[in-house]
Amino acid sequence: MSFAVHILGANSAVPNKERFPTSQYIKVGKESILIDCGEGAQIQLSKYKLKPSKINTILISHLHGDHVYGLPGLIGSFNLAGRREPLTIIGPVGIQAFLVGVFKTTYVTLNYVIVFNELDHEGIKHITELKEVTIQAFPMKHRVPTYGYKITEKERKQNILSEAITTYTLSIDQIKAIKAGGDFVTSEGEVIPNAALTKEQVNPKSYAYCSDTVYDEDLIPFIQKVDLLYHEATYLHDLQHMAEKRKHATAKEAGMIARQANVGRLIIGHYSSRYDDLQPLEDESKIEFENVHIVRGGDVYTL
Amino acid sequence: MSFAVHILGANSAVPNKERFPTSQYIKVGKESILIDCGEGAQIQLSKYKLKPSKINTILISHLHGDHVYGLPGLIGSFNLAGRREPLTIIGPVGIQAFLVGVFKTTYVTLNYVIVFNELDHEGIKHITELKEVTIQAFPMKHRVPTYGYKITEKERKQNILSEAITTYTLSIDQIKAIKAGGDFVTSEGEVIPNAALTKEQVNPKSYAYCSDTVYDEDLIPFIQKVDLLYHEATYLHDLQHMAEKRKHATAKEAGMIARQANVGRLIIGHYSSRYDDLQPLEDESKIEFENVHIVRGGDVYTL
Repeated sequence: MSFAVHILGANSAVPNKERFPTSQYIKVGKESILIDCGEGAQIQLSKYKLKPSKINTILISHLHGDHVYGLPGLIGSFNLAGRREPLTIIGPVGIQAFLVGVFKTTYVTLNYVIVFNELDHEGIKHITELKEVTIQAFPMKHRVPTYGYKITEKERKQNILSEAITTYTLSIDQIKAIKAGGDFVTSEGEVIPNAALTKEQVNPKSYAYCSDTVYDEDLIPFIQKVDLLYHEATYLHDLQHMAEKRKHATAKEAGMIARQANVGRLIIGHYSSRYDDLQPLEDESKIEFENVHIVRGGDVYTL
Repeated sequence: MSFAVHILGANSAVPNKERFPTSQYIKVGKESILIDCGEGAQIQLSKYKLKPSKINTILISHLHGDHVYGLPGLIGSFNLAGRREPLTIIGPVGIQAFLVGVFKTTYVTLNYVIVFNELDHEGIKHITELKEVTIQAFPMKHRVPTYGYKITEKERKQNILSEAITTYTLSIDQIKAIKAGGDFVTSEGEVIPNAALTKEQVNPKSYAYCSDTVYDEDLIPFIQKVDLLYHEATYLHDLQHMAEKRKHATAKEAGMIARQANVGRLIIGHYSSRYDDLQPLEDESKIEFENVHIVRGGDVYTL
């Protein structure tokens, strides 16, 4: 199944040239999921020719402006485009009050339904299941209530080898049993193990999103071995005192988390506007974790 | 005095490629004024190297999202940049409730003061006076309460000719009287007319902003003979029925208003996202009023 992370923006709050604040568009099979929605996200979707109308689920990490101020415009544009399909918005408690308040004061009456799912839990929790993926949320440590997200492809039933069907003249019921993981016993009593009857299963791919958060080793079990991890890296490590004070992470710390969680690849963002050149952030992170990329609007990472 | 209108965005609500919604940055002498603040205005300010910190007055036409959804981000960024100077925001009743609601739900505590001036008047009214300009507001006819704005340079005292001072050995008091517009009477009783003693006065320049509005001849007296007029032109005239229904104007109608108001130049914008090519809007308007330009983000019009 195709699984791609499109970066719409990866800057922190104050703009630096054309670096947009945080937002990502995730395409997994036929699912389109938006994670965070900083100001201008809908303009970026239009620029990169990604279809906003396909988005049915929006995951919000926290209620700081650089992660949500693009939501009212996007939701209003859905309305103007005549949307009828319901939209699910998942985020910390308060996300509904924010949007309802904005719509009330700016004359917006929606012609479709928004289903809010407000989070207020400890530990990692399964929060929704779409056709192609399951989504879990886990709390992070920032200045306000904040959640990280893990999106995992659903396990698929075993694919049976066509030779096995003809060799053993399998019935529909026998095929079902093998697809569910069972071995096959021939009429002579010979046990044919499942692995000999099925194609090798590809491990379900997974993506984890951690922004914004202070350096926090409690996150490691939640994101263990994901194929791709996005972790914020607001500062270089010489400003670690500021990162800690503002509950952000440094590029070095993002690398440390990726290494300890044994992830496949790391992408970092949410960099402070003080950095015109972003390469030093990548270089610093690379010392801790080799397979790291600094992200920019328009980048696409496939799993 | 320098007087420039910088276009940050001129699209209507739904994005089309990289066309941002409505916002303009007006630089008059040392004053920086923002008119409307669609989503992404602060990103455009950064892109065009215009200093947001210089903005002390923001004029809002109405509370539709494509004119205000950039405000929370801009105001929040002022905060993050350590702003201490007060900011004046002028707009229809409700602008304060919108911003206060957003800040309450997204954890914003300002470290500077916003002075709100909410409008609810008929006819044209003087609403504020800055060092270099006076600003008037007048109601327009749209789906929700909406105001247009007229920014006029202040009249300057006459500039006295240096030859006049030496020829007539004028005293300070005599110079003041001439600067205030008076003639001069010599000791022989000869009357020297003011025009012979002063440089020709340049007429104070003026700019009027009309967006959003249906075609409305009631606007004409308010914007009579301005040097530059911005008038919305959401549709081509073949969609006049839609313009009327949605309380917008067509390109032809913008030209008609400019001609009847006898303005110097016309700029048009707020075009519907259905138009990929904007030239037909300009062409249609030009039939009614020759000196017209369609505006795009990054354009600068000087008066």
